[in-house]
Amino acid sequence: MEEMPRKADSKVSTIVEVDLGNRSYPIYIGSGLLDEPDLLQRHVHGKRVLVVTNTTIAPLYLDKVIKALTHGNSNISVESVILPDGEAYKNMETLMKVFDKAIESRMDRRCTFVALGGGVIGDMCGFAAAAFLRGVNFIQIPTTLMAQVDSSVGGKTGINHPLGKNLIGAFYQPQSVLIDTDTLNTLPDRELASGIAEVVKYGLIRDAEFFEWQEKNMQALLDRDPSALAYAIKRSCENKAEVVALDEKESGLRATLNLGHTFGHAIETGFGYGRWLHGEAVAAGMVMAVDMSHRLGWIDDTIVKRVLNILQQAKLPTTPPEMMTVEKFKTAAAVDKKVADGLLRLILLKGPLGNCVFTGNYDRKALADTLHAFCKS
Amino acid sequence: MEEMPRKADSKVSTIVEVDLGNRSYPIYIGSGLLDEPDLLQRHVHGKRVLVVTNTTIAPLYLDKVIKALTHGNSNISVESVILPDGEAYKNMETLMKVFDKAIESRMDRRCTFVALGGGVIGDMCGFAAAAFLRGVNFIQIPTTLMAQVDSSVGGKTGINHPLGKNLIGAFYQPQSVLIDTDTLNTLPDRELASGIAEVVKYGLIRDAEFFEWQEKNMQALLDRDPSALAYAIKRSCENKAEVVALDEKESGLRATLNLGHTFGHAIETGFGYGRWLHGEAVAAGMVMAVDMSHRLGWIDDTIVKRVLNILQQAKLPTTPPEMMTVEKFKTAAAVDKKVADGLLRLILLKGPLGNCVFTGNYDRKALADTLHAFCKS
Repeated sequence: MEEMPRKADSKVSTIVEVDLGNRSYPIYIGSGLLDEPDLLQRHVHGKRVLVVTNTTIAPLYLDKVIKALTHGNSNISVESVILPDGEAYKNMETLMKVFDKAIESRMDRRCTFVALGGGVIGDMCGFAAAAFLRGVNFIQIPTTLMAQVDSSVGGKTGINHPLGKNLIGAFYQPQSVLIDTDTLNTLPDRELASGIAEVVKYGLIRDAEFFEWQEKNMQALLDRDPSALAYAIKRSCENKAEVVALDEKESGLRATLNLGHTFGHAIETGFGYGRWLHGEAVAAGMVMAVDMSHRLGWIDDTIVKRVLNILQQAKLPTTPPEMMTVEKFKTAAAVDKKVADGLLRLILLKGPLGNCVFTGNYDRKALADTLHAFCKS
Repeated sequence: MEEMPRKADSKVSTIVEVDLGNRSYPIYIGSGLLDEPDLLQRHVHGKRVLVVTNTTIAPLYLDKVIKALTHGNSNISVESVILPDGEAYKNMETLMKVFDKAIESRMDRRCTFVALGGGVIGDMCGFAAAAFLRGVNFIQIPTTLMAQVDSSVGGKTGINHPLGKNLIGAFYQPQSVLIDTDTLNTLPDRELASGIAEVVKYGLIRDAEFFEWQEKNMQALLDRDPSALAYAIKRSCENKAEVVALDEKESGLRATLNLGHTFGHAIETGFGYGRWLHGEAVAAGMVMAVDMSHRLGWIDDTIVKRVLNILQQAKLPTTPPEMMTVEKFKTAAAVDKKVADGLLRLILLKGPLGNCVFTGNYDRKALADTLHAFCKS
């Protein structure tokens, strides 16, 4: 993090750098950033831009973004493609609509794709940018808390397969991430809470101090206090940037960002994409991972209680939906990306608050006991 | 190139190294290499292998490849997916069959995909490997001359879009390329000639000596003389490996490997994928590029004649199909990947035999004249 000295960027309160050698990029965080054309334009290469957004976000912010891209810059031509909204559309069929539009509007290798929306838009636009003409530039403008604190940072892109989440994709880094915290003003409460699940995750896996801050400030976050939200976003991006810089392609450390996600993805896949929000499934998944960590004797029960408390305060689910059976969890876990040579590896808490491990070395009985404790059958 | 000293590899006549830092890999070239299990097994990571092949090649070589993968190695489980054969199937729908099979058979991040077939299989399997779980290992076993001299080397992978060739894909390098020249014994004459078009290309763009060798040895190549074919493959791979090592992501130099391809892709797209083989379209495209180079005054007419002669000797087409109009060429060229900010860049010969340029700086009239000379309308 650093303070921006330039006058033109007076509204930028924070920049977090993602340090990846010649693929490093800045995350701009602040209020009113969409009214600062230079912040976007400095990262646009070529003369053609394709904005990828959805039916919910387009009426709210598409004009603003087009204005920011073209302001004082008549050389730029901007096209847009508006996709249906929701996780249920994060598939190959929707992705093809992006390619169709890009080809019809004659985007070339020097064009820039802009993802304007939540995590689904960011993941799909990023993968489209990775694959179109074998790779074009892209910029992330995340408009949900979930995307701002997690999915827009770090270069994981992709789509779902009917049998599992994010099974098809690429590691592909953006040119920049522009987080205008004002976009959260239009975010529904349920979406806000979904993003908070990932904020809680950073505290649990590596940042006890941040978790304690959240325990004290949860109500302020739920009340959308601008400075509380800005701090939560900044601290989350810093945590994510640190992890991604150390392990871009998820050889090990980066997997810890997936606390609760194996169970959570199973819920999303088993329950039907889009019925629960990603963060809701992750919240229930984190409770299950914490329960299993406790059964293994790796954490004491005060941590279990604190996790339950903070998630309940955020009105997030702490148990999977009733239709999830042990069998459904097992089927989904079998295609989890963290399986290696047939062994399911999990992220589990171990030791004092803020510590976790990524391991396939655990007592299978604890996993079975957790699944049976959370499922009716 | 180096000679293999090891006894176990007694049948390997040549190894060409593709030098890409920590993504470097060997191309093994020789007769009977599919009978050398170690050559394959040394590059397999993990315990699971998915062989991607097609309905033509599966009956000929799939058993042999499975045997080579599993010989003396009971730890390995091999699955296969058999796709329909031909350029017309190089699309998203067919690609999804690879993902379906990979997921159903529980391939994980440590698995290896093996491409067994021609360029279409190699390009699709490579892109599937690039995108599955955001990237798994893969090995190329090209069985056509086209794939052996060109498409299996260098990491370009992808699929076609109805509006243009190879518009969706990735740069993704294999672990190794295994060229068993015996597989050419089952290759139809027309496919052999198609591969020869790319061999001729290397001579024209950067290797006059190789072109002269081809002029003397074309009949031996057409007669499938094993040592002539082995030399042509080796020299082609060496040329390609040198270019790719200097410019993996096609910033400039690598584009020269696409001599004739802008016109050729236009023919493939306009005429219908699969009606002409890729090399046939490239042959006609090279004649057009050479014609245009001559109109610009960049080469003398002896080169024009020698190109026509050698392609005619190989029984390759030297004019586009009659249905191709000037308009069809222009429409297809507009989505060519080499367009930058609206400007079509072309590979054109310039100077003595074996020299070319990649440029957008040419007289538009020469392009128009070439198109009108080769099209009836």
